[in-house]
Formats: sequence, structure tokens, C-alpha cells
Amino acid sequence: MKKSSLTILGCHSSIPTKKFHPTAQILEMKGYSFLIDCGEGTQVQLRKAKIKFNRIIHIFISHLHGDHFFGLIGLLSTFHLLGREKSITIYAPKGLKEIINVHFKWSYTRLKYSIDHIELSSHKFEKIMENEKIEIFSIPLKHRIYANGFLFREKPSSRKLNMEEIKKIPDIKIMDYQNLKLGKEFKTNDGRIIPNQKLTFDPPKILSYAFCSDTSFYLPIIEHIKYVDLLYHESTFLKIEEERAINTGHSTANQAAYIAKKAEVKKLLLGHYSNRFPNIKEFEKEAKEIFFNVEASEPLKTYYL
Amino acid sequence: MKKSSLTILGCHSSIPTKKFHPTAQILEMKGYSFLIDCGEGTQVQLRKAKIKFNRIIHIFISHLHGDHFFGLIGLLSTFHLLGREKSITIYAPKGLKEIINVHFKWSYTRLKYSIDHIELSSHKFEKIMENEKIEIFSIPLKHRIYANGFLFREKPSSRKLNMEEIKKIPDIKIMDYQNLKLGKEFKTNDGRIIPNQKLTFDPPKILSYAFCSDTSFYLPIIEHIKYVDLLYHESTFLKIEEERAINTGHSTANQAAYIAKKAEVKKLLLGHYSNRFPNIKEFEKEAKEIFFNVEASEPLKTYYL
Repeated sequence: MKKSSLTILGCHSSIPTKKFHPTAQILEMKGYSFLIDCGEGTQVQLRKAKIKFNRIIHIFISHLHGDHFFGLIGLLSTFHLLGREKSITIYAPKGLKEIINVHFKWSYTRLKYSIDHIELSSHKFEKIMENEKIEIFSIPLKHRIYANGFLFREKPSSRKLNMEEIKKIPDIKIMDYQNLKLGKEFKTNDGRIIPNQKLTFDPPKILSYAFCSDTSFYLPIIEHIKYVDLLYHESTFLKIEEERAINTGHSTANQAAYIAKKAEVKKLLLGHYSNRFPNIKEFEKEAKEIFFNVEASEPLKTYYL
Repeated sequence: MKKSSLTILGCHSSIPTKKFHPTAQILEMKGYSFLIDCGEGTQVQLRKAKIKFNRIIHIFISHLHGDHFFGLIGLLSTFHLLGREKSITIYAPKGLKEIINVHFKWSYTRLKYSIDHIELSSHKFEKIMENEKIEIFSIPLKHRIYANGFLFREKPSSRKLNMEEIKKIPDIKIMDYQNLKLGKEFKTNDGRIIPNQKLTFDPPKILSYAFCSDTSFYLPIIEHIKYVDLLYHESTFLKIEEERAINTGHSTANQAAYIAKKAEVKKLLLGHYSNRFPNIKEFEKEAKEIFFNVEASEPLKTYYL
């Protein structure tokens, strides 16, 4: 299986232009392609990134400001026109369902696939989805309207069999493999105990990703994103505009770096840049004053966890 | 004043891609910039065409299929973010107001400018707007859902003064100019009658533009668009897919040309091409079998009336 990765489709705030694309990204994790936010033009960015529409079966919308979801109705409509039958689940604040339904009502569209709406309304850190491979949590953010970040965490996978060692012990049959993967020791027919570590390898490290946008500088986030491998934290402004950040419910690059440092994350990605700063490397430079492993995210670039 | 012209922003149907932009166009007429339809990505196309957002104060939406209006909410939102104060009037079928309002309700946006909604519901050819320079009519089309085309017609302007001749007759004072512009003859103090044609030039020719998309091959259109200078008529398909055109409420290039010929229009522009025909010159070639002055419209190209 491919290593978990994040592909940025858009990482600018508010108004789309020729060069600036509003928020949208794809997290590839354990075989899933999670679409996080969906600003206008996301479907064309997905094409540019060569991401197959059919791989997306979960969509996460952080909040209902246009630069985070105005591309969704177009994407859902395109799914329909392309004959999609696979259902899709959308995790979003209350309101999105009404917005989607009113569009399809007036175009008299009966979708060929079904949409499951998971309406987010909690102000707590909460598990919103879990399967055998992944857990996903909502992270309360502080913005002008109700907004959530998301934490995606792989589940531990089973230990890997060390076939070279296993073959040396004829007593071990295929039916024993499951117990070995679960970490159990092996008892031979003559009563010898063989420790599990001798017969298996450690499973791959559990990886995690946190998406935090849009949000003010908000310390309660820290405990929820402790030690994540990759944190995307908005940095709409530079510190010279800190007051504007406060007034608009956004953060500066410095503040994003402070959150990353306190949460001891492995790597920080910046984004949701205001269009008034054309050189995004300034965000990176400013964040580096506080937290070393930081990068200013760029559209159509992939970052490995 | 600039000559009336049409700038195509997008002229493909259904799904936006890297190269294909859904329907949107700007008609420049008598100093106005009319936006006709507004598929996803229109605001970026407007930037590419260097059309100032603030010049748009009238928007016409033909029908509520996504490829004709999914870019509108983003454009309206951008107007707001850029601090627009000038109000805007939207001519669209019933439903659009509800769609717009539900977006702004959930983002808790109070627009800085006002939107006047003109709800179209008639199935007749009807005047929907008139001022001293222009008249605009809705043209009933035949599609899967309620759809209108639009006819834009300049009003006759006054006759132009022939200053060289006027100066030869000292009796003519500035206060007489208005009557001359209106076509009246002039009576000198000694009772001579000078015919108006001697003192004025003919006004510029009245120009007209008709937009007809989306529609089946529909003969009742013809009488409403008789002799227009420019007709944009959809040609989603080539004649090999005529049956598909019938089933989906669209037209072929051949059919568009037949309408143009019967209406004796000056020039026909084709558009709303299906993505399944990558070479749009095929549409032009097919239409030319029936009507000579035809062009397959292309994005970011301007056509003069």
C-alpha cells in the first residue's frame, strides 16, 4: 500500500483567480482518498492532479464559507453526469444538506448515486468516523462561523510475518499466522516457547494528519493534534497583520508555528494565504522563527506523512 | 461609444475541465456589460478576459442546469468580498433566488450590495427590461427544464448633426439642434424649408443579439430572432447524434444553422459543445452546409455585431 500523503489542490483564501485556488486537498490514507474542503474549481484541480473522481467516497467540509465549498455542487453534479453509482458520504456543518438539495430540486435532478450526510454540530473533539483501518475526529476551531478541523489517524495494523524464521519451525502452520500477527508467542509441539518478536516484524508506524482551517490562534487545538505527523494549519496573514487576523477569525504564520511547536508535530504545512501576500515563502520564513520543519504548501504538490 | 460585441467566456456543455469552460458570455452593448449565464469558473474567465467586475450590473441566467449558473454564487460572493456597493439585477427562472439566499443564510453573510431578482416564468416572448438605450426580451426555448433565451436590441439613437452644413445657415441656433437630431426640417427666418437630410447624418444602425441555449430544435424561436445581427444558438451535437439531441433537449449544428437561415440572421455563432467532440471546427463545417456566415465560438474570443 502507498504511503499516506496529502495533495494540495488549492491553498489560498477567499477569491479564486488565475493563479490562486481556494481550499481543497486530498488525503491518501490506507487506500482511501479523502477530499477535504472543495472551493470553486476543485473538480478541474482534481483533473490536473490526475486524481480519479471515483476514488473519492468521503468528503469533509470544514465550514460554510464559500472558499471552502463553492466547488462542491459542481463536483457532485459532475459525478452524476459521469454516471457515478457509488454512494458518497459528506461530513459538514448543518446547512450544507439544504444547500445541495435546493440545487437539485430546481434542476429537477434525481441523482444516480446517494449522498449520506453526516451533519457536524458538536463543539467537542469527537470521533466522527471509524473503520478497521482509520479513525477520524472533528477538531473544534474558532472562526467567525461554526468550523471544524479534522484529525485522520491510521489504526495499528497487525505485525508482519518473518517468513524466513517461521519456515525454520515446521510446527507452525498457516492457521497459526493470525495469532502471530496479533503478537502472540508460539508454543512448539515439544513445549518450547518462541517469543513473537523472533517470528514477526513491527508493523508500520501509525501515521496521522490534522487539518486546521479556518481558525483564529486557538490554544485548545493543541491537545487534539499532539504528535501528528503532518499538520496543515491556516496562516492567512503575516504577523504585521495580526490585528486583522484577530478581527477576521484567522491566524498568522507565527501563530500557526506556535501551535505546531506546542503540539510537537512532526511537520507543519501552511496555507489559506491571503491574496495580499503574493510571495508565499514569506509565510514559511516567518513560521521558521518558531518551528523548524515547516513548508508553505503549494497547489498540485504532494506531501508525504 | 464602442461597437457592440460579444466575448465568450465559456462555450462547452456539462462538465468543466482544464480546457472546457461551461457557458458564460459578456455582451457589451451601448456601454453596458451584460453577463449571460455563469458556469463554474466564470469569475476566473472574466479575469482572463480583463473584464472589470464592477461593470456588470445585469446578469441573465437561461435555466437552472449547473453548467449555466454554478459559478454565480462564487461571483456574487467575490463582489461582496471586494466591497461592491453597486446593486445588481439578476434575470433568472424561479428557484435561483432561493439557491442564492440559502448560501448566504448559512454563511451568515449580509451582502454589502443589493440583488434585485427578476423572476422569469413566462412561456411567451416578452420584454423583460427596457431603458433609453436598449430593449431586452425573453425567448421561450424548449429544453428539459424551463429555459429562456434572450434578445438584446439597441434602441434607435438620434440623427447625427452635420456641422459643416449647419454652419452655413446662421439662423440655426444651438437650441435647434435637438429638433434636428429628432429628424425635423428647419425653417429659416425668411421662410425657406431646409430638409433634415441636408443637416444631419443617419444614426448608426440598430444592432441586435440573440442568445438561444439550451434548446431543442425549436421552430417557434425563428420569428423572435428575425434579422438579428448575431445569433448564438447551441449546437451540443453533430448530426450523427441527432437522436441524442432530441432525447436530451439539445440541437445539432445542422439544426442551429437551419434556424439561422430561416431567421435570416446576419451571423451565427455555435456553442455549448458536447465534450465528446474535441474538434469544434466540425460543428462549423456541418453548419456551413446550410448557412454560410457561421463560426464555432471559442473562449476568450470577442465577436463584433
